[in-house]
Amino acid sequence: MYSFKNDYSEGAHPNILKALMETNLVQQEGYGLDEYSCKAIEILRDKLNNPEANIHFVSGGTQANLIVISSILKPYESVISANSGHVNTHETGAIEATGHKINTIDTKDGKLRPEDVKYILEQHVDEHMVKPRTVYISNTTEVGTVYKKRELEELYSYCKENNLLLFLDGARLGSGLTAPDNDLSLSDLSRLVDAFYIGGTKNGGLLGEAIVISNESLKADFRYYLKQRGALLSKGRLLGIQFLELFKDDLYLRLASHANTMAAKLAEGIVEMGFSFLTNPESNQIFPILPDNIIDKLNQKFLFYVWSKEGDNMSSIRLVTSWATKEEAVDGFLKELKSLMEV
Amino acid sequence: MYSFKNDYSEGAHPNILKALMETNLVQQEGYGLDEYSCKAIEILRDKLNNPEANIHFVSGGTQANLIVISSILKPYESVISANSGHVNTHETGAIEATGHKINTIDTKDGKLRPEDVKYILEQHVDEHMVKPRTVYISNTTEVGTVYKKRELEELYSYCKENNLLLFLDGARLGSGLTAPDNDLSLSDLSRLVDAFYIGGTKNGGLLGEAIVISNESLKADFRYYLKQRGALLSKGRLLGIQFLELFKDDLYLRLASHANTMAAKLAEGIVEMGFSFLTNPESNQIFPILPDNIIDKLNQKFLFYVWSKEGDNMSSIRLVTSWATKEEAVDGFLKELKSLMEV
Amino acid sequence: MYSFKNDYSEGAHPNILKALMETNLVQQEGYGLDEYSCKAIEILRDKLNNPEANIHFVSGGTQANLIVISSILKPYESVISANSGHVNTHETGAIEATGHKINTIDTKDGKLRPEDVKYILEQHVDEHMVKPRTVYISNTTEVGTVYKKRELEELYSYCKENNLLLFLDGARLGSGLTAPDNDLSLSDLSRLVDAFYIGGTKNGGLLGEAIVISNESLKADFRYYLKQRGALLSKGRLLGIQFLELFKDDLYLRLASHANTMAAKLAEGIVEMGFSFLTNPESNQIFPILPDNIIDKLNQKFLFYVWSKEGDNMSSIRLVTSWATKEEAVDGFLKELKSLMEV
Amino acid sequence: MYSFKNDYSEGAHPNILKALMETNLVQQEGYGLDEYSCKAIEILRDKLNNPEANIHFVSGGTQANLIVISSILKPYESVISANSGHVNTHETGAIEATGHKINTIDTKDGKLRPEDVKYILEQHVDEHMVKPRTVYISNTTEVGTVYKKRELEELYSYCKENNLLLFLDGARLGSGLTAPDNDLSLSDLSRLVDAFYIGGTKNGGLLGEAIVISNESLKADFRYYLKQRGALLSKGRLLGIQFLELFKDDLYLRLASHANTMAAKLAEGIVEMGFSFLTNPESNQIFPILPDNIIDKLNQKFLFYVWSKEGDNMSSIRLVTSWATKEEAVDGFLKELKSLMEV
Repeated sequence: MYSFKNDYSEGAHPNILKALMETNLVQQEGYGLDEYSCKAIEILRDKLNNPEANIHFVSGGTQANLIVISSILKPYESVISANSGHVNTHETGAIEATGHKINTIDTKDGKLRPEDVKYILEQHVDEHMVKPRTVYISNTTEVGTVYKKRELEELYSYCKENNLLLFLDGARLGSGLTAPDNDLSLSDLSRLVDAFYIGGTKNGGLLGEAIVISNESLKADFRYYLKQRGALLSKGRLLGIQFLELFKDDLYLRLASHANTMAAKLAEGIVEMGFSFLTNPESNQIFPILPDNIIDKLNQKFLFYVWSKEGDNMSSIRLVTSWATKEEAVDGFLKELKSLMEV
Repeated sequence: MYSFKNDYSEGAHPNILKALMETNLVQQEGYGLDEYSCKAIEILRDKLNNPEANIHFVSGGTQANLIVISSILKPYESVISANSGHVNTHETGAIEATGHKINTIDTKDGKLRPEDVKYILEQHVDEHMVKPRTVYISNTTEVGTVYKKRELEELYSYCKENNLLLFLDGARLGSGLTAPDNDLSLSDLSRLVDAFYIGGTKNGGLLGEAIVISNESLKADFRYYLKQRGALLSKGRLLGIQFLELFKDDLYLRLASHANTMAAKLAEGIVEMGFSFLTNPESNQIFPILPDNIIDKLNQKFLFYVWSKEGDNMSSIRLVTSWATKEEAVDGFLKELKSLMEV
Repeated sequence: MYSFKNDYSEGAHPNILKALMETNLVQQEGYGLDEYSCKAIEILRDKLNNPEANIHFVSGGTQANLIVISSILKPYESVISANSGHVNTHETGAIEATGHKINTIDTKDGKLRPEDVKYILEQHVDEHMVKPRTVYISNTTEVGTVYKKRELEELYSYCKENNLLLFLDGARLGSGLTAPDNDLSLSDLSRLVDAFYIGGTKNGGLLGEAIVISNESLKADFRYYLKQRGALLSKGRLLGIQFLELFKDDLYLRLASHANTMAAKLAEGIVEMGFSFLTNPESNQIFPILPDNIIDKLNQKFLFYVWSKEGDNMSSIRLVTSWATKEEAVDGFLKELKSLMEV
Repeated sequence: MYSFKNDYSEGAHPNILKALMETNLVQQEGYGLDEYSCKAIEILRDKLNNPEANIHFVSGGTQANLIVISSILKPYESVISANSGHVNTHETGAIEATGHKINTIDTKDGKLRPEDVKYILEQHVDEHMVKPRTVYISNTTEVGTVYKKRELEELYSYCKENNLLLFLDGARLGSGLTAPDNDLSLSDLSRLVDAFYIGGTKNGGLLGEAIVISNESLKADFRYYLKQRGALLSKGRLLGIQFLELFKDDLYLRLASHANTMAAKLAEGIVEMGFSFLTNPESNQIFPILPDNIIDKLNQKFLFYVWSKEGDNMSSIRLVTSWATKEEAVDGFLKELKSLMEV
């Protein structure tokens, strides 16, 4: 059965495996001090247009989130997140396990805006409450929406005015940066957030996220955090080699672009059949709302998550495409849906 | 310059890379529920002669140590370790960061014996002190020594009599199990410790350690710990495929055996030149004690760590061999050392 | 200016000071093993009708909450609380600082009901999310409401069916147990929650809360938690003596009853003037909704907290009475309010 | 049986109880913002000759230690302590429970000197190890010895040269500052450590320690730490009133001086009988080494701790005197010891 469950159902882009083979027996320093990691950092700094950026490779998104957030906060400080934020809902309390509260707020499209942050700040005024210090967002968001440059500028500017740090979870940053309506670049990000990470696992890598720290005050001793949390791989080359390949000839953006194109094709087809969506389909995750009986039948031929009940006989489902999604599968899905509707 | 600094200077055994390529585009479930991981678990259970063993793959040793130890202990409980234990000296306080004290004791050869544990227990008698609950050992130890079956039996038996759990760090378990004097099998381990892990990173893998839990009381909900600590890789197949290859046709033991053979050859050559060792050379880490001026010169042709000052003009160095160590390099090292002595 | 800000504006009931003086020079064991603490525990067990109850005295409510909750939970487990719960809003992330997430839900009257807990449970289904294990409630609640026996029975019963533990914060338990509509006894509590505490600080003591553990599985090694969190006072006698006095001749209930009577008098007077309340006035905290201009003037003669905006020109205020509240002050407040209305 | 077990066997100095009675019904702000606490802080600042000192009252020593140390350290930083330090041996892992490692070193007299700290620093050189950042000492030490001004100057100076902070646990500071050989004043302390606390519990108070922060960089938001750790008493007046009394007419020093005089009399008597001591008797804790058979018999008439085995038939015992120790009891102890020797 073909799977639209997620963007990590396959292995890695072949270039990555090829590079692993070619470099396999070259002896290298351990713990991320190998020449591939160093070179990948140079290339990323160049793409970021930020020669001073602090860059570290870790093996996964939860690890990146918990390390960055806990490195920023003092024990009594908290992080603000949309209620739907990944750190709040799908990381088994990883942030709280480092000792910090997440202050949450409901937002329809998964994005945070200055007024959301303001609402939280106004509730936290003295030492009987935590002190919000970091704002966590993701691009794309947990519900597939994409930040516009203006939105990020406004949020960042509000953060700076209020002594807050802005951290962006980029597990699906590739899809965000190549979304049809996107107007953000890597270089913008480096300017408009204090720290973020570039997700490799969900965009063609075997595993790996590149943490980027722009804010000078967050750079010191960061490798201590990596080591303490079990994130400093002895064969760090494995991560460096992957990012080296992903950012050669913009492979990273090309892979994400394919995923977005496949999702857009799915979305168009579904729209044509007259269905609506939980959130606007903007990236490689889309959430069509379909009749429950059709969902049941679709599920016999395709794998995907049923996301939320939407009224009595309808639910939203989540369809995710990736660098590896085959156009035939997209066509097959649309054809199957169409035929189920005609029954 | 050829490096004897560690056993993670190269990539992975070619079989692993080959398997990654062959399986690359097969869609799989995420988070370690893929068919390769499931099959690897079956094979390991068979080798362990323990069909009920709980097995989980994680990406590194510090991660394995902190997850297992923190999953065992209540907040006020502690872990006992040799002073030289890796969790005590080289993990940046990873155990303490989960809230737990390490009770340490000096031991010359890096091993813990019942009398060492007894000494700690006798000092901890009421609620003004932590309550020791777990004993941490590693095989091979931090200084390259290897546990004998009798030693492990005595320690395990003492632990059971005193309501303690025994956890074995097997980052270099391959070298331990194939050491010339070894009389332990994987199946013995499964009987003689409550939990342990089988190190893949330092014995031919790209990354990966297989946590094995024998003790029934430690099995429940273990995947929650993995997720909370950032250890549940979305592409868990990467770990499963590697252990599948490593335990096919006993590749794991063959790789370790090569490392030990290379270390033994180094040790013999050094003994012949009349040098002694910090600890008995038993595995793939050996610690010859050499004159400082010779060490300086050796270091211009080979990479290795200088370990400890031993008297006025002597130091111990650490030489580590691996599955990838070339016999020519071993010969070259001995030849160089010999020629330096003759100067 | 007379203060209705809280129930801890004065010192202790004179009986307590008297007892401190009379026992002052008798030598006693430290750390809560003194004869006064032992005797107080016996008396409490008798009142609870639970000779096996585990009882410990600590110095404050946040301390009691964080110690009990963190002693119950495994690292990946969470506690469920009303959004308005004290642990969620006014303890500076004390629970999260012990590593645990609080799962919250909005409830109008500050109480949790089985359907609230069910809603949370249904959202937490696998290892990507925390595992709710404890339900936190308080009686009286943060907004002054009081649990009925039937409500507690239903909640406890739901908890037991779903493998949850029920913990009750009794910082203002005296007021709850002597509220006009109360039908719960200390003995009921001992049956209907797994652990709770009896607040001394806010009902006549200098400081002190008595933690009561009924559930057998939570009793072991509890003193270790106390010590580790800095809650084991070397002069534990200070706490024991107070509870001994408070539970002699039901002083505790008589003091709370006075507070409730004073609050009821305030509430009746305010109702007579035609004002409504944020929540039903049931205990020693009441929340009348008054015009903002009147609040400003009242505040020049009486101290109290302005609680929440309620419409354009109205706000709720919090009035708290205590064992020490003077009836003249209550009369004075009502008279002042009346005269302000007539202006 | 008369007890020399500790200095917290009795209640409080009568002046304190008297002050509690006299102020009992005056309404005050909560959480340490009452007028007594404010006034006590003014008086202490004056004694410290440090008008900018940040001063906070908490209820006990373990609480003071864990709050100060965890407020100073980043997650990967550690605290250096003598092996015998109270935080290392008798606080149930309270420091580790906040996430931090304690680096320990054996010292015969319980004091730390620059060379001890240097030894630890030299072992901690990169991100695979914790980063020592704070030095913990106590005065008097766990074994009753007293720091000289020169020793503290040297240690502080070494700390400053090495970017370390110096924290002094003053649970028994009164005894230290009035020891016969003491040359330190409160004002010196304020200059020579970055933070310390003045112990009230063991020198005439019911409970209470005054944390003093001199180092500007440690002052911000300290009340958040107090609240989060459960240390902000709602009736903070209880602590303020005590310190107000203790520092009125130097009562604090007079009480400590009495304890020291009683200990000196005990020590002199024991020396005259020909016994030696584990450490030099300098303060209100002394550790004579006596024959085991005599210890057994003494223990039938006096309470004290047996401290350590010293050879085959000898042990050291700990005798502690306090502000409340009766000279008759001291005489009685010496007489009993003498008569046991003559048997």
